[in-house]
Amino acid sequence: MQHVEMESMTEQAYRCWLQYETILNKQEEAHYWSYVQTISLQKETLIGQAIKRELNLAVESMFGKTSTWQEDAQLVLTTVADKARLRKHGINQEEIAELNEEGYIIKEKDNQLIVVGASEKGLLYGVFHLLRLISQKQSLTDLTIQDAPQNQIRMLNQWDNIDGSIERGYSGQSIFYSNGTVTTDEKRLTDYARLLASVGINAISINNVNVWKEETHLISERYLTDVQRLEEIFQSYGVTVYLSINFASPIELGHLDTADPLDAGVQQWWKEKVAEIYSYMPRFGGFVVKADSEHRPGPFTYERDHADGANLLADALSPYNGMVIWRCFVYNCMQDWRDRKTDRARAAYDHFVPLDGRFRDNVVLQIKNGPMDFQVREPVSPLFGALQQTNQLLEFQITQEYLGQQKDLCYLVPMWKEVLQFDTKVQGEGSTVQSIVNGSLYQAKISGIAAVANSGDEQSWTGHTLAQANLFGYGRLTWNADLTAEEILHEWIVLTFGHEEKLKRVLSEMLLASWSIYENYTTPLGIGWMVNPNHHYGVNVDGYEYSRWGTYHFADREGLGVDRTRESGTAFVDQYAKENADRFNALDQCPDDLLLFFHHVPYTHRLKNGKTVIQHYYDSHFEGVTDVEWLISEWQSLKSLIDPYRYKNVAERLQLQLSNAREWRDQVNTYFLRKSGIPDADGRKMYE
Amino acid sequence: MQHVEMESMTEQAYRCWLQYETILNKQEEAHYWSYVQTISLQKETLIGQAIKRELNLAVESMFGKTSTWQEDAQLVLTTVADKARLRKHGINQEEIAELNEEGYIIKEKDNQLIVVGASEKGLLYGVFHLLRLISQKQSLTDLTIQDAPQNQIRMLNQWDNIDGSIERGYSGQSIFYSNGTVTTDEKRLTDYARLLASVGINAISINNVNVWKEETHLISERYLTDVQRLEEIFQSYGVTVYLSINFASPIELGHLDTADPLDAGVQQWWKEKVAEIYSYMPRFGGFVVKADSEHRPGPFTYERDHADGANLLADALSPYNGMVIWRCFVYNCMQDWRDRKTDRARAAYDHFVPLDGRFRDNVVLQIKNGPMDFQVREPVSPLFGALQQTNQLLEFQITQEYLGQQKDLCYLVPMWKEVLQFDTKVQGEGSTVQSIVNGSLYQAKISGIAAVANSGDEQSWTGHTLAQANLFGYGRLTWNADLTAEEILHEWIVLTFGHEEKLKRVLSEMLLASWSIYENYTTPLGIGWMVNPNHHYGVNVDGYEYSRWGTYHFADREGLGVDRTRESGTAFVDQYAKENADRFNALDQCPDDLLLFFHHVPYTHRLKNGKTVIQHYYDSHFEGVTDVEWLISEWQSLKSLIDPYRYKNVAERLQLQLSNAREWRDQVNTYFLRKSGIPDADGRKMYE
Repeated sequence: MQHVEMESMTEQAYRCWLQYETILNKQEEAHYWSYVQTISLQKETLIGQAIKRELNLAVESMFGKTSTWQEDAQLVLTTVADKARLRKHGINQEEIAELNEEGYIIKEKDNQLIVVGASEKGLLYGVFHLLRLISQKQSLTDLTIQDAPQNQIRMLNQWDNIDGSIERGYSGQSIFYSNGTVTTDEKRLTDYARLLASVGINAISINNVNVWKEETHLISERYLTDVQRLEEIFQSYGVTVYLSINFASPIELGHLDTADPLDAGVQQWWKEKVAEIYSYMPRFGGFVVKADSEHRPGPFTYERDHADGANLLADALSPYNGMVIWRCFVYNCMQDWRDRKTDRARAAYDHFVPLDGRFRDNVVLQIKNGPMDFQVREPVSPLFGALQQTNQLLEFQITQEYLGQQKDLCYLVPMWKEVLQFDTKVQGEGSTVQSIVNGSLYQAKISGIAAVANSGDEQSWTGHTLAQANLFGYGRLTWNADLTAEEILHEWIVLTFGHEEKLKRVLSEMLLASWSIYENYTTPLGIGWMVNPNHHYGVNVDGYEYSRWGTYHFADREGLGVDRTRESGTAFVDQYAKENADRFNALDQCPDDLLLFFHHVPYTHRLKNGKTVIQHYYDSHFEGVTDVEWLISEWQSLKSLIDPYRYKNVAERLQLQLSNAREWRDQVNTYFLRKSGIPDADGRKMYE
Repeated sequence: MQHVEMESMTEQAYRCWLQYETILNKQEEAHYWSYVQTISLQKETLIGQAIKRELNLAVESMFGKTSTWQEDAQLVLTTVADKARLRKHGINQEEIAELNEEGYIIKEKDNQLIVVGASEKGLLYGVFHLLRLISQKQSLTDLTIQDAPQNQIRMLNQWDNIDGSIERGYSGQSIFYSNGTVTTDEKRLTDYARLLASVGINAISINNVNVWKEETHLISERYLTDVQRLEEIFQSYGVTVYLSINFASPIELGHLDTADPLDAGVQQWWKEKVAEIYSYMPRFGGFVVKADSEHRPGPFTYERDHADGANLLADALSPYNGMVIWRCFVYNCMQDWRDRKTDRARAAYDHFVPLDGRFRDNVVLQIKNGPMDFQVREPVSPLFGALQQTNQLLEFQITQEYLGQQKDLCYLVPMWKEVLQFDTKVQGEGSTVQSIVNGSLYQAKISGIAAVANSGDEQSWTGHTLAQANLFGYGRLTWNADLTAEEILHEWIVLTFGHEEKLKRVLSEMLLASWSIYENYTTPLGIGWMVNPNHHYGVNVDGYEYSRWGTYHFADREGLGVDRTRESGTAFVDQYAKENADRFNALDQCPDDLLLFFHHVPYTHRLKNGKTVIQHYYDSHFEGVTDVEWLISEWQSLKSLIDPYRYKNVAERLQLQLSNAREWRDQVNTYFLRKSGIPDADGRKMYE
């Protein structure tokens, strides 16, 4: 009894954006019911079954009634293969030709609705689109929608370990593993697959990129039956499963004495291993690899390069159309803070640009959005644009490692939009990151976007209920990068919380402001870090200043920032196309929000807004706290419009955020006051 | 086979100062053998058996022969009770009357040797003294020694946990517990008891002062049989066993709903509990209690004070002559760094001085040597002198928590000497700390010294072989505080490494310089901290600067230090007797080595040596590293004189110390260069 109550209390948090709220308005109910009372679906494949399940669930929930599944129906679900049916509904060949294999058409005519998928997967996406339209109360009359994803791979990386922990996870334990075994909670995994498919995510790697001892065995008999079980669940929602592998597997699993990529025995071992994996899972996606990075093994051990390493796996995977996703997060993590010449920001470019063109065509390099590591503000990685003959995936981080860890609010879509819109200029104006990752700029065979998931086994999936917006937004944006952050947010709010105008307005304001608020009270002007070592939550100005991680702010009594100019610094700027390089290099042209990333400036340097750097630091830290107080009062104004569980979940986290923001403000301001000796121009309370 | 070899390789490290090296010189052999060839010992009590075992072991090892135990003998071992024998050997009543109950007389006459203990324990100490004399090759002819310990309690605190870990332990795992059970390795415990008895340690608490969930049960049926087993081992070497207890035991073990010291049910519970413990161990020593400190439970929960809490236990223990050792390490560990009025250094005095006179006479307060927490240099705790009607134990830390963790060399006896010799002046000149802890100044019923042990299950007991000197030195100094640090060291070197003059000279120089070397490259001038949080090893200048622990240096662009003066600071100085208070308070009188403990000064402040504070900081950090290099070359010069295992053990640690010292030098110098902007006067290499 208590369990049921608890479940119903938390149900809304659990359902995320798939609420399928009961339609109470009679007129609306009549309109939508007229379409879904009868449904036809030909094939009963795995994906077909998922489509049917989802529609039954949604219809039951929205109408309290069940659809009749029959040959002649008001709602027709089919694929392009069904030419007769297309003709009957007046859908012509041109419309179809424009679709890529994951696209679909939704068309209404004479009170009949058809959803045509370019493939079954396309049909699945079309059905989720239709359900989204109904949930948003959009009229279906005379509807014509033709839609397809812009990016080929739209992937999630789970950093889950078999012991149930999640590296950089802030939403409980893994839903994939618990207590050293692969989960048997298939209901939960199915619901996760539904959430992902509903926003178009089509790929997932199901274990941590740091592949530890036990996880190395995921590609062995010990686990393959279990992995296959999960794979089937995701496959039925159009989500292809990948595994992160240990480059030293031939040694650890195969008991060879080497993992050298040019060794014939090693090559043979991987061929047999891959054959074994595909015998369990014919639609297996391939491998994700973190090699020679942060002490993980890799080809460097054998004096081979990353192309040798990636191609080894690519050759083994190629007969099955499998893919190697090779991460570019390679840098010297034993740096000496005394050494101001070495620049971690340079590392990915320096390692991988010389290898451009040497990778097999089923290798794709996965590149973090910025050159450092998911800081609150970084320039775009210069690898985008510089790599021209290599498949590329952009890597985002949905989990808020450096961005408040789902205690602090931070809606990430605006940041991701900036990255995608960044113009690398390598092929002239319009060479945006988006044009690279959607494959158009260099006609890449494989491309797309991956991101580290923010989900776990908490009721809300994401710890902070409002962090669901980031998972949703990630899917929607990677599907269609032309959507604005606001559009995505409005969709999410309506689907998650309903149609109240006040909810929409207030939540939009809160979430759209949240990134900038977080930046204000932490590390504005592009400097980053200043966090507590290891766990990365909370302020510690010198926390990484004398570390081996290459993460410094170089604050002294005159100023701060990292000199990455070509004249006096590390010349990192020159990894960009000339126009961008010149802009970042020139103190008067470099955008203020990246100023300290590229320049070491005196505290008295004037920003474009006329303020000195130090005054901007004080101001933004005072404002950051005030803004969190504003977030709290905004949220409180929504109390009557939100169920108690989700209200409390967010309200509690906003209080944590407020203490965090205050601590950031006071420590940062005191640190720089002590160092610069320059008082606040407004004479506000600071601690000496 | 391999095991045996390993054992013989490490045997010398294991034996510490009880080497009992074979006597090779014929003349010496003949001299000593003439005394030990026949021995008489009357009683075969537990301690008597231990004495016999020790002599048999030593004689076998030194002479390769066995003594004959017989009534008439060359060596007579007896106690004051044996009046007939004393008369026979011409020992008169005055000599005996001067001894306290742990004292002894050793007398040689006509090639006969007698050791008389004021008690059996005294006899045990006398025998160890005799063996020390032989090991040091001192002639026994016409010897007369009359010796007794100056301090009543000479205690070790083991911070061992039942899971086998040791809080602040740097020498492996516990020898008392492993894998969640009390050890069955009684050989090792017996050898530990021998080591302690040989230097006069007469009390030991066998579990961590932080008493966690499982350890709470040490005073319950679950463990008492095991504890009794250990207690018997230590008792047979004259070492009384104590247990650290959880103040909330009545709740956790007794399932009462309170632990209120004034509650009759709680009082009754403790009475019964103590009766139960003494039914297992009639000679049990009593309880060590850390209450209301760093989140441990205590009387504050019930709005009672520490006298109420301690007296509760004292009343229960009193029928058995048991003792309550109540720690004074009580302070606010949730301090706000913004608050410069609260001063952790004040806390112990502020808490306990108002309670002076309110404790039962079987309560003894255990007071850390300094007001903070075992930093490399602190003033003496002002509780010494201020408490006049309360039993007191001085607490040292042998384990090198903040002093290099037995990776870095730090011989501690010179520091302890300074503490004992400090003149509190409360009763005029000569009111030294030693006169308080030996009970003479205030005629205390109970007094003495306790220290946190530095031992563990590594072969050498102390990780760093040379850290054995601290365990030895602690015992010898607490026995006789008039011994100099050099005298103790010379004894230890000869007993541990043998008689080579070069060894004696070089090792003396190394160890006597080591505290000052460590201070130089870490935190000179009394400021302390600047370490990595939690584990406390290695430099992190701001590591505790914005913490909740009350541990700040307040370095800003102009200067550093904590203002504890009466005029502008926290007035901590006034916790000392006026003469000391005035001296610490006056900038020009305060000793330089404590300057920053008491004063916030500009970097340009001139020390008594004419240097500025900042220049002294640079100099001492450069010198510290050079001095470690000197330690290394000194040690290397001893290579041929030391067995390979111990040589390597120390050589490896000296290298770790060198990297540690370099990192301290560079980070501290860079930190202060960046903050002060003042360059090194000597233009040495510094990193900006």
